This record gives sequence, C-alpha cells and structure tokens, in this order.
Amino acid sequence: MVLDIKTSEIQLRDEDQLSLDLIEAQYALKHSRDGKCGKSVLILVNGVELAGKGEAVKQLREWMDPRYLIVKANTPYAPEYGQPFWKPYCDAIPAEGQIVILFGNWYGDAVFEFVHQKHPDVVEFAKRLEQIRSFEQYLQHNQVDVLRFWFDLDWASLQERLDDVPPSQKKWHRLHGLDWRNKQHYDRLQSLSALFKHECCVIDGSDPEYRDQHFAQKILQHLQDLPERCHGVKQTWLSQAIRPELLEVPQHQLDDSVYKKKLKKLSRKVADALRDTPKNVIIAFEGMDAAGKGGAIKRIVKHLDPREYSVHSIAAPEKYELRRPYLWRFWKKLPEKQGICIFDRTWYGRVLVERVEGFASENEWQRAYDEINQFESQLIESGCVVIKLWLAISLDEQAERFKAREETPHKRFKITEEDWRNREKWDDYLVAASDMLHYTHTAQAPWYIVATDDKHQARIEVLEAILKQLEASEES
Amino acid sequence: MVLDIKTSEIQLRDEDQLSLDLIEAQYALKHSRDGKCGKSVLILVNGVELAGKGEAVKQLREWMDPRYLIVKANTPYAPEYGQPFWKPYCDAIPAEGQIVILFGNWYGDAVFEFVHQKHPDVVEFAKRLEQIRSFEQYLQHNQVDVLRFWFDLDWASLQERLDDVPPSQKKWHRLHGLDWRNKQHYDRLQSLSALFKHECCVIDGSDPEYRDQHFAQKILQHLQDLPERCHGVKQTWLSQAIRPELLEVPQHQLDDSVYKKKLKKLSRKVADALRDTPKNVIIAFEGMDAAGKGGAIKRIVKHLDPREYSVHSIAAPEKYELRRPYLWRFWKKLPEKQGICIFDRTWYGRVLVERVEGFASENEWQRAYDEINQFESQLIESGCVVIKLWLAISLDEQAERFKAREETPHKRFKITEEDWRNREKWDDYLVAASDMLHYTHTAQAPWYIVATDDKHQARIEVLEAILKQLEASEES
Repeated sequence: MVLDIKTSEIQLRDEDQLSLDLIEAQYALKHSRDGKCGKSVLILVNGVELAGKGEAVKQLREWMDPRYLIVKANTPYAPEYGQPFWKPYCDAIPAEGQIVILFGNWYGDAVFEFVHQKHPDVVEFAKRLEQIRSFEQYLQHNQVDVLRFWFDLDWASLQERLDDVPPSQKKWHRLHGLDWRNKQHYDRLQSLSALFKHECCVIDGSDPEYRDQHFAQKILQHLQDLPERCHGVKQTWLSQAIRPELLEVPQHQLDDSVYKKKLKKLSRKVADALRDTPKNVIIAFEGMDAAGKGGAIKRIVKHLDPREYSVHSIAAPEKYELRRPYLWRFWKKLPEKQGICIFDRTWYGRVLVERVEGFASENEWQRAYDEINQFESQLIESGCVVIKLWLAISLDEQAERFKAREETPHKRFKITEEDWRNREKWDDYLVAASDMLHYTHTAQAPWYIVATDDKHQARIEVLEAILKQLEASEES
Repeated sequence: MVLDIKTSEIQLRDEDQLSLDLIEAQYALKHSRDGKCGKSVLILVNGVELAGKGEAVKQLREWMDPRYLIVKANTPYAPEYGQPFWKPYCDAIPAEGQIVILFGNWYGDAVFEFVHQKHPDVVEFAKRLEQIRSFEQYLQHNQVDVLRFWFDLDWASLQERLDDVPPSQKKWHRLHGLDWRNKQHYDRLQSLSALFKHECCVIDGSDPEYRDQHFAQKILQHLQDLPERCHGVKQTWLSQAIRPELLEVPQHQLDDSVYKKKLKKLSRKVADALRDTPKNVIIAFEGMDAAGKGGAIKRIVKHLDPREYSVHSIAAPEKYELRRPYLWRFWKKLPEKQGICIFDRTWYGRVLVERVEGFASENEWQRAYDEINQFESQLIESGCVVIKLWLAISLDEQAERFKAREETPHKRFKITEEDWRNREKWDDYLVAASDMLHYTHTAQAPWYIVATDDKHQARIEVLEAILKQLEASEES
C-alpha cells in the first residue's frame, strides 16, 4: 500500500489501452462475486481541497464502466457518543464484486475534528489512527480491499486555484468543512495528515494529466494484484483452551419463595440501571439451545417499555450479508441513539456454529477472536457497555427441556429435528465455547458464564451479571 | 379494518390458548416467506400517552414468540424538504414472513406537526391523511398488510396516570413530544385523530386486561384472515395504448460542429441549473439497450463534481429486495439531502421487463401505473423534481451498435448473448413502453421521448429536456 512512485514519475499510458485494462479488471472483480475469492474494493479519497479529487474520479468514471463504479460522498460527521467512527459508513461498505469510491470518510472526519483545535491533541489523533488501522485491517481480512488516496497541493497553488473557482461552484466548494484560505488550518492539516500520508498513495494535484493517470494506474495495479492477495494472511493457530469448570454445570437449588423475592427486586433494579446509564448498552447472549436465553431476556425487559430497547434474534445470514464482512450485519443493528440492544445470539456465531459446522475456514475463525475483541473495544471506547453472557446447560437437562418443548403446545414450535441432531456435536460446541470464553474474555468486556440447569438461579445470576458489568463500566 | 367491537365487549380468552393460536398464526406467516402468498404485517401503534401502548405490546411479546416479533420505536420526525413522509421508515418495512410493530410512525409525525399549531390547518392535515392512505394502500397491495391501532384514554384518567408515573419512568415519558398536561394539546390531538380513528382499531386504555386482549385478539384475527386476502383486489384491465409516433424513430441529422457548440453551451447550463435548484432532482432513464443511456448520463454530469450527484444502475433485484414491495429498493436510493440522483433504469422495470418476461403478474403490472404515479407525486409534493426520459432506437440501429460493441475492445463487455435474444421480444417491449408512456405521462412528471438513432441530436435533446423540466418545476 505504501507509495513507491511519485506522480511526476508516472508514465503516461495510452488512454484507450488504460481504459480497456481498467474495464477488464473491473469485470474480473465483478465476476468474483459469490466465488471462492470474492473481493470488493473500497477506495478512500482524501486530501487538500481543489487538488483535483473530484476531477480524478470523474476521469476514472470515463475510463471505467461507470455502471459498476459506485461513488459516495458525505459531509464530515462529528463523532457521536455511543457511535464508533465507522458507524455512519456501514452502507458504504461494498459487497463482493463491487467498487465503492468514498469521499468523506473516517480520515476526513478525524482531520476535520482535530484541525479545528487550536493545538491539536496529536496523541489522541494518533490513537484514532490506530483504531482506523485496526478497522481497515478487519475489512482487508474480510473481502474488502481498502485503497487510500491523499491528494496533495501546496499552499500557493491552492490559493491560486481558490481565486479561479467560478462563482457557480463556490457554493459547492464551501461545503467541505475547512476554511482553505486559513494558513493555520492548512498547516495543521498538513501536520496531521503527515501521520497517515505514508500509508496512502499520495497524488500530486498540480498537473491534471499526471494526477488522473497516477490515480487510475494505481487502482488498476491494485485490481490486477487482487487474485494474489486472495487467501490473505495465514494465521498462527491458537492453542485449545482449557474448558472452564462452569461449563460442566454444577447444580444450584434456589428456593421458590427466595427466587420470587429476589427476582422482583433485581428486575426493577436492572431496569432502573439500564435506563439511567448515559451509555448505549449491548447485551449479548450465547449458549446451547434451550439454555434459557429467551426466558432470561424476558426478565431483563420486564420493567422496561418495549420502546426503550430492541431485541435482535440472530439467524443464519442472508446472501447479501454473506457478501460483506461477517460483522457488517451486526454493525447495522447497533443502537443509533442512546438505547438498549439485546442480541439473542451474536457475532460469536463466527467462532461457534460457523467453526463447528465448517462455514468459516480455520484461518477465518482463528482470526475472529482478535477481530471480535477489536470490535468490542471500539464499541466500548465510543461509549457503549458490552455485557456478554454464556448460558451453560448439561446434556441431560437439555434433553429434558427438548422433550418438554415437544409436549407443550405453545413451545413445540421451538424444537426441530435439527436441534436433536446438533446434540451429536455437543463436545465440538463445548470445545469451541471454551476457546471463545478464553480468547475473548477481556477486562473491558468479560464473559459471564451462567449455569442454567436451575432456571431460577440462572435468571437471578443473569440479572446480577448485568448490574455488575454496568457498575464496572461506570467506574472505568 | 374498521373496528366492529369495543374493548369493553371483548370476550376474555384463556391466555394459554390465545398464546398458542397467536404463535401458530405467527409461524404460518413466517412460513409464507418466498411462497406464492408471501405476506408481511406492519402494526402501527399510536394513541394517547399512558393509554398502555407499551404494556399491550409487552404482553403481546409474552404471548407470541418474541424472536419473530420485531419492535421498532422512533421519536417523531419533522418533515424535511425533499423527503416524502415515509422516507424515515424504509428500514421498518417488514420483509415477507415478518411482523414489525412500529411505534412512532407517519401518523404520530403528522399529529405531532399539527398539534403544535394553535389553529391546526385541518385541510392540510386531511391532505396528509390522503397521502398516508395512498401509501398504505400501496403497501397493502404489495405483500405488506398494515394494521392500525389507536390507544385511547380520556382526559381525567390520563391526568391521574400522569400523577402516578414513578420517577424513574418520568424521563422516558417526557420523550414523546407532546405536553400531556396541556388540555388544549389533548383536545387538539383528539380532534385531529378523529379524522383517522375510524380507520384504526381503537383500543380503550382504561382496563389493562381487556386492552391487552383486545389488541392481541385483533392481531390474531388479522393473521388468521391473511390467506383469504392473499390474492388482493382484482384490477380492471387498462386498454392497450396507441404507440407514440416518436417510438418509430424519425431520423435527425445534426452537423458535427453545430453539435459540439450546442453541447458545450448546454452541458454547462444544465450543470448550473442542477446545482442551483433548491430541490432534489431525480433523473430517470429508460429505453432499449444501446439507446445511449450511459452516454447521455456522461454529458449531464460533465461539469458536475462526482460528489454532487449519484448514479444508480439498476439490475435485477436481490432476494431480500424481492421480499418487500417492489418500490422499496428505490426508496432506499433516493437522495437523503439536497442532491442529484440519476437512475440508469428505474422503477418502470415493473411495467417493462417484469411485464414482458412475466416476472410480475398481469394484476401486478396493471396496478403499477397508478402506484408509480402516486410514488412520483409524493416525491414531487415533498420537494423533488422528477425528470423522465425514454431513449428510443430503431431495431436496425440497435443491431449496428451491438455489432460495434462486439468489435470495440472496451465496449465488448457491454454486450451479451442475452442482449441479442431480447431483440426477439422487441415488439412486446414497444407495446409495454407505449402503455407506460401513456399511463404514466403526468402533468407533474411528463415523459420526454428522445429518438437516438442520431446520437448527437439525442444528447442535445436530453439536456434540453432536463432544462425544460427544471424550469417547469420552478413555475409550479
């Protein structure tokens, strides 16, 4: 990704041939959709105003087949509490086979935010860049190739070009957030961008012809190299984790009257705590079938109004979701404003069902622990509480509950042949769960393992875990 | 849909049996997905604060399988210029097999807007209701069954309940926009809602038990009746329209130097006009293959920055799109803020390719003319300009261009076997186009038919048509 040639050293190519090569590469990408090496390309365009970003993209549209080149533009987003920096861009993430050019993206947002500080906090800015890098690496590892461009222009040329902007375009140029007549802003922009420019392809905006060719040739080269990068980086395998004792499910017994009293008190306390926290709350449930996820959720929301929370029941992904990074379908479900969001099954499907059933390759699920940790850490840093619960059940108790479901009219819908079949893979699931609990149990987002053979005890423990994690998050 | 029984006349049913029936009906709906009579249900919940909307939904969640009951809540949206009233709710439209309960919807928005006027403009409000009805009818005809509820509560009871709200919930209740201590607001709300209450199932909020049962029983009855409403209303067939002369493609000849001069002047003028209009602009292209849609688009955007417009190339719908009303995928592509949006093929696919290839039933495409007219009229009323262009070509000229494409390296990607096969249905397409041009040529959104055998002349005419329609829209 690091730039090896300067714009001035670019060899101008015959336009027809360049166009033909670009279109061929574009169609090759398009046809990769749903294949073994399906890829998409996200082109991030940033830089100095009037350096020719728009013109270069326009020229590219002429050379390529514009029907398969999606261009998206956003005005800068100010960071919102509870919203990771990538949240506004979910819809810009290309599906397999697509190319998206994104003007106005996380770099622009970061620069926009810090350039307006009189003395930009460089440490904070570098931290943001770190997050950006980790997010882009996630995309990169999950079908989406990210190409970064920085269009550069020196101060004198910029001022000259500003003088020449025709009146009809002035309105348009004013839209882009920064005051380009302000030398201080310009200098700050340059010193901030110096921190990530070396990871961009820097395009010199002074000569239009070389600029457009440099931009297009870089994209062509990138598209042509895609197949080589098909299989991604080989993961170092993690070792099998030790099975946590709690997964073996010790028995609890909770007296009925104690349960009712405790439940009543706790469920009110949980509702108040959820309502009062200024953060977005994300509660993630995983566990074996019939471990009581639904029942536990019912008790959490008992004293909440249905308008205060949302519950997402996660089933197998749809085809259009499979064409994007696997976390994408969860990004879209995250709370928009201050809210409470409960997931009945989660992104951990990657390292549970997808691992056990072979829907994800070993490379993919091995990598996923890290990816998920990063994802959760971004949520937490943006102002969310992430509460993760594993509901454990014994094989015998599960059989009991399956039978009970079959015999109870309004529960028999919840049980299928497949549920019985899944029991054959019981041990595989426990192995997967053990690894998951080990490798994604972080200080910020720890796992709470709840044994559920005693349903009542389990519900109490779920509520207690939520309170505990809410308190912990306030202290941090 | 009109309420026949009052809440007080509801027969309380055994809860277990009610729950079982609800779950059975829910699963029947779920299994209708992708079938011949796939349906979805959208439940709109509105009414007086504290009448028990939230409680009734909560109880319904307990009786039904909550995993397949999606609850969405929004705070009221103020109408935005260029945004039809339904735009904020695109993501709430359920897919086949789904049930969505929507708190905060177009009724709430309308009431919220008018209740704050000292003397609500009842004529305007009635007009909005008319638009709502037409939109809901569209949903109704296109798989989405709409169920409207109004939760009612008299002034005295409301005040009593407000006194009793526990402090922890006060914050939550204050969220809902209206001042419920204000008798004037309450009275205005009642007189406004009187205009649509008769089309809702009115739930009396005074007795919780009857309220919850009324709500649930109504939904159950509705779900159970769904299969009967499967085939919808039979359309009265429209008669075949006369083929417009222009479709027969008269020949033009434009001198090359005249063309270049005209094009230069016009394309600048179009760019300025598009940039200057305060409205959202939607440009819709239809026409036979190789009629030059791509070339025409290129000339429109010549002097625009790629950040100022978006181009949507419409291909066959994806499966998740097919599970929703056919206009849905276009709603989502409409410009969010002031913008220029070009469609390379459009919603007219319904009455063109879907009609000719049999993807839509005769009932469906016959109905679509009206539906599309309504859709465009909503766009226009909300502050959009809709410019529709049909590019006509002769059978011979198309063959010439197909051959040329096959022989030009960077164009041969644009031509497939299927394009040649489609020529066999040439006359069917012309028949469909004639009907479309006849039945959707409205005063607000007229069709511009452009003969394209002379490409240069055609491009000039496209630009002229855009200018003409932009001017017309400013006068209206």
